[in-house]
Amino acid sequence: MTNVFSWFDAAVAELADPQNQRVWSIIVSLFGDLAQERGAKISGGALTRIIEPMGIKPEAIRVALHRLRKDGWIESTRSGRASMHFLTEFGRAQSAQVTPRIYDRDPETPETWHLLIAEDGPGIHTLDDLMLTRHYTAIGRNVALGAGPLPRNCDDLVAFEVTARAVPDWLRERLCPQDLREACTSLRDAARHAFETRPGDWQPSPLETATLRTLIVHRWRRVVLRHPDLPPVFFPPDWAGQECRAEVFRLLDTLPRPSPAQVNSFT
Amino acid sequence: MTNVFSWFDAAVAELADPQNQRVWSIIVSLFGDLAQERGAKISGGALTRIIEPMGIKPEAIRVALHRLRKDGWIESTRSGRASMHFLTEFGRAQSAQVTPRIYDRDPETPETWHLLIAEDGPGIHTLDDLMLTRHYTAIGRNVALGAGPLPRNCDDLVAFEVTARAVPDWLRERLCPQDLREACTSLRDAARHAFETRPGDWQPSPLETATLRTLIVHRWRRVVLRHPDLPPVFFPPDWAGQECRAEVFRLLDTLPRPSPAQVNSFT
Repeated sequence: MTNVFSWFDAAVAELADPQNQRVWSIIVSLFGDLAQERGAKISGGALTRIIEPMGIKPEAIRVALHRLRKDGWIESTRSGRASMHFLTEFGRAQSAQVTPRIYDRDPETPETWHLLIAEDGPGIHTLDDLMLTRHYTAIGRNVALGAGPLPRNCDDLVAFEVTARAVPDWLRERLCPQDLREACTSLRDAARHAFETRPGDWQPSPLETATLRTLIVHRWRRVVLRHPDLPPVFFPPDWAGQECRAEVFRLLDTLPRPSPAQVNSFT
Repeated sequence: MTNVFSWFDAAVAELADPQNQRVWSIIVSLFGDLAQERGAKISGGALTRIIEPMGIKPEAIRVALHRLRKDGWIESTRSGRASMHFLTEFGRAQSAQVTPRIYDRDPETPETWHLLIAEDGPGIHTLDDLMLTRHYTAIGRNVALGAGPLPRNCDDLVAFEVTARAVPDWLRERLCPQDLREACTSLRDAARHAFETRPGDWQPSPLETATLRTLIVHRWRRVVLRHPDLPPVFFPPDWAGQECRAEVFRLLDTLPRPSPAQVNSFT
């Protein structure tokens, strides 16, 4: 038992994001993973029990919940003595938008790509507007790369169908800067180590599972959403994205997602 | 005969470039058309007889020849009483570089294209260097479009193989500005009118032929070399490039190129 307990503590410490322990952001990851369905609620007690092992105090959780309510992400109701928290429609929509990319085990790189080029000067704004509403990667101040077919209305933009052939270091460096490369390799190593040292006889509680899943998803989210699914030529040679993804899902697979009812019943 | 003479005078007036009668530039066109071969020489007398009908005085021709010698385009020797002028190796090389494009009756638009994108800021210089040594079209300050395969060394540039899909008005306008569109339609109309009004029994002298050819080539050169052979999508709907080219060659075909010996023998 000592061994099992110390593995959980070690895994929590190892999987905690060294760069971001912002509590409101962890709560967003938690709801996205465990309670994204309409009607899914997490009790205040469960929330505290899932998050506290990360070294976060109940007071910090209350402050974060207050902020998330103010920003329209979360609503709270009372059920008897317990407070119950759930995502608003806005929160669910935000969460649903990134869910496919976070949980894609084997994303296919799109085969068709296009470039949009704005006129120097005033044209930048047309491009900015488009980049806000669709998923584009900036190649330069007035050039954006997008997957799939051209937008129906290119407005004042020059549009090319393209195949990337050469990507210099400055662009790879801009797309995958040092901190992102490090976040990727350190998550890969942490997930691998947690998987490999996990005692074979460990039966986690739903709350322990929720703690570990939240940590993994939170940290992976911050890696996977920062770099777009570009063709391999865009990534630096030491980019560990594929390995990191493999380790993340290998570990998550040992931690089947508990239902909200399961985590709430333990409080 | 009156009719024939007046047609020649009218054609000369009509074919003269309303935007550029710079004498040194006309002489460059003349040598490029009539005496581009190594060893080909044009006598001073022939030069005057070819150019004078354009309303250019012998003194202006002398000044232009002086400038062309100073710039390394032309050399002059004496042969008995006559001065003989010819292109230097530099002049021949400059001339040879543009000859294929000037005399191409039916240019094929290249099928493969590529875009090179420089980093904002310092990267512009890499692109500038490349654009000086190869034929590229600027799409923006840091984006250049080139025909054919990628350069072997793209240096610090992002490189895409591309197919153009949408070209907005601002780019068409930049590639074919109003003055170029007008130069194109006015040359088309002038060449067509000269062809259609030409008396059937007219037998031009080698010097008359040389005058008309020089005027046509000079004016066409300034249209054809200003716009690159881009795919049709890049041109404004009123771009008369194809029609202009057709009229230019229809008229040139009625004026077979005289040899240097032929034009020199008349002086």
